[in-house]
Amino acid sequence: MKRASEKTVVIIGMGLIGGSLGMALRRARPKVWRVIGLERGPSSLALARRRGACDKIFTNWREGVRDADEIVICTPPSQIVPVTRRVLPWIKPGVVISDAGSVKGPVVAGWSHLQKAAASPIKYSFVGAHPMAGSEKTSWEHGTATFFEGKACFVTPLPATSQPAAAAVAGFWRGLGMEVATVDPERHDEIVAHISHLPMVLASTLCSLLASKDPSWRGYAGGGLRDTTRIAASDPRIWKPILEQNSTQVLHALREYQAEIKALEAALTEGDWPRVTAMLERAKAYRDGVRT
Amino acid sequence: MKRASEKTVVIIGMGLIGGSLGMALRRARPKVWRVIGLERGPSSLALARRRGACDKIFTNWREGVRDADEIVICTPPSQIVPVTRRVLPWIKPGVVISDAGSVKGPVVAGWSHLQKAAASPIKYSFVGAHPMAGSEKTSWEHGTATFFEGKACFVTPLPATSQPAAAAVAGFWRGLGMEVATVDPERHDEIVAHISHLPMVLASTLCSLLASKDPSWRGYAGGGLRDTTRIAASDPRIWKPILEQNSTQVLHALREYQAEIKALEAALTEGDWPRVTAMLERAKAYRDGVRT
Repeated sequence: MKRASEKTVVIIGMGLIGGSLGMALRRARPKVWRVIGLERGPSSLALARRRGACDKIFTNWREGVRDADEIVICTPPSQIVPVTRRVLPWIKPGVVISDAGSVKGPVVAGWSHLQKAAASPIKYSFVGAHPMAGSEKTSWEHGTATFFEGKACFVTPLPATSQPAAAAVAGFWRGLGMEVATVDPERHDEIVAHISHLPMVLASTLCSLLASKDPSWRGYAGGGLRDTTRIAASDPRIWKPILEQNSTQVLHALREYQAEIKALEAALTEGDWPRVTAMLERAKAYRDGVRT
Repeated sequence: MKRASEKTVVIIGMGLIGGSLGMALRRARPKVWRVIGLERGPSSLALARRRGACDKIFTNWREGVRDADEIVICTPPSQIVPVTRRVLPWIKPGVVISDAGSVKGPVVAGWSHLQKAAASPIKYSFVGAHPMAGSEKTSWEHGTATFFEGKACFVTPLPATSQPAAAAVAGFWRGLGMEVATVDPERHDEIVAHISHLPMVLASTLCSLLASKDPSWRGYAGGGLRDTTRIAASDPRIWKPILEQNSTQVLHALREYQAEIKALEAALTEGDWPRVTAMLERAKAYRDGVRT
């Protein structure tokens, strides 16, 4: 039963993010959302049911989205725009369509294209979002109702997005305990290339190098190596599309980083210890100020 | 009172490592070591007393070392050889001298020199050691009696070291729950350049790059950035000497690493996604096999 105060959110894709989102929304007090899940994969479907990740679950597009006040697309990134196109015919006017993808450029381009191609006056709003939650453990079993609490979330409205729609999406994630930052989609992709994709690339290339060394070395790892490389244990099926969709910004960040390494290499080669120390101190000061 | 079964270990330098070592040895059951501390810094001295890190503490070299069966030098790396020279006149025959430094080349060179310069037949043994314990928190307050448990420890005998002396040092650390690997000093420095110093350099250069960006970005950090850069919060006064003492091996590892980055950059530039995926998979397979 839908109560008068409730709005309906439809989560498309009940994986780690979508499932955790459903659990978080259903357990929120006061509960303001009726949660509908739309999922076709049998194992995710079963898990979503078992863990109570939604009030109702559908496999049919039309049935799934027709009551939606807000739609959050939590599919793999390459599916966000195709899924949007698929559900547009069935939504009611005024729906806010959002997502949870790690890269915003291609999604925003696809959505803008859909908006321009719409024959009738636009009856929905697009607002990208990127909750910075997740870990190297990317399967459903690691989902929790507190998955988003205390973490950062980007909200990236399109130029054509109405202010109320952007505010609605910001409020949606803020209601789950996230700290919301509203930025341009392009700026978002530049930021995450540096603070998320570059760290992943460094961790992975370090592991890739060490994989060529004597296998016995693995047994000597201390806490430094373990933490530095933790994210390299992530699923390549998650990360390859991220690197692909954000390759321009990732390459830019990677080139800046190589200049930083070159500078340190020069200081080490020249035995310029004040310069080495200055770099270590700059790094420590930065790290001490990072959100923990 | 010294019991008949006890041997005396003298820990020189009661900082994070030396203090934790004392606490671990004193709390071990069965207790086989009488623990003497040698420390001149007033604050470390006070903390060692307060936390019960040794049975007795001295500030005088002669008094401190005269009963030693084993000496473990836990000073900053640059002090290990000078301290050794300082205590040699006061030790009794048969003492095993060891350390806990992160780089072995310079210590081993210094010790070999002392051995060759000795006028009388050598009455002591040198055995380098490097317990791979520690964190970015390098002050005494983070010391614990379980600091070493379950971690890796390198033991690096000199060519002239007797087998019983090397076995004694290996047994010493094994008695604290460490997994001991005996390797050449040169090999040790190559290994730690890759699995410890390179990760630190990558974390620090990443932070150094990010320090040049908009300060607001710090607030967006997710778990990936946090873990990848944790070690960059370490004290530069600890790390500058490590990079200095091991600069040849660190530079070698850093150049290998840059080749790895270059290869990934090429794959990203060319949009060679199978190659990107292969790198991510190689990295994940490596990371999944790392000691945790």
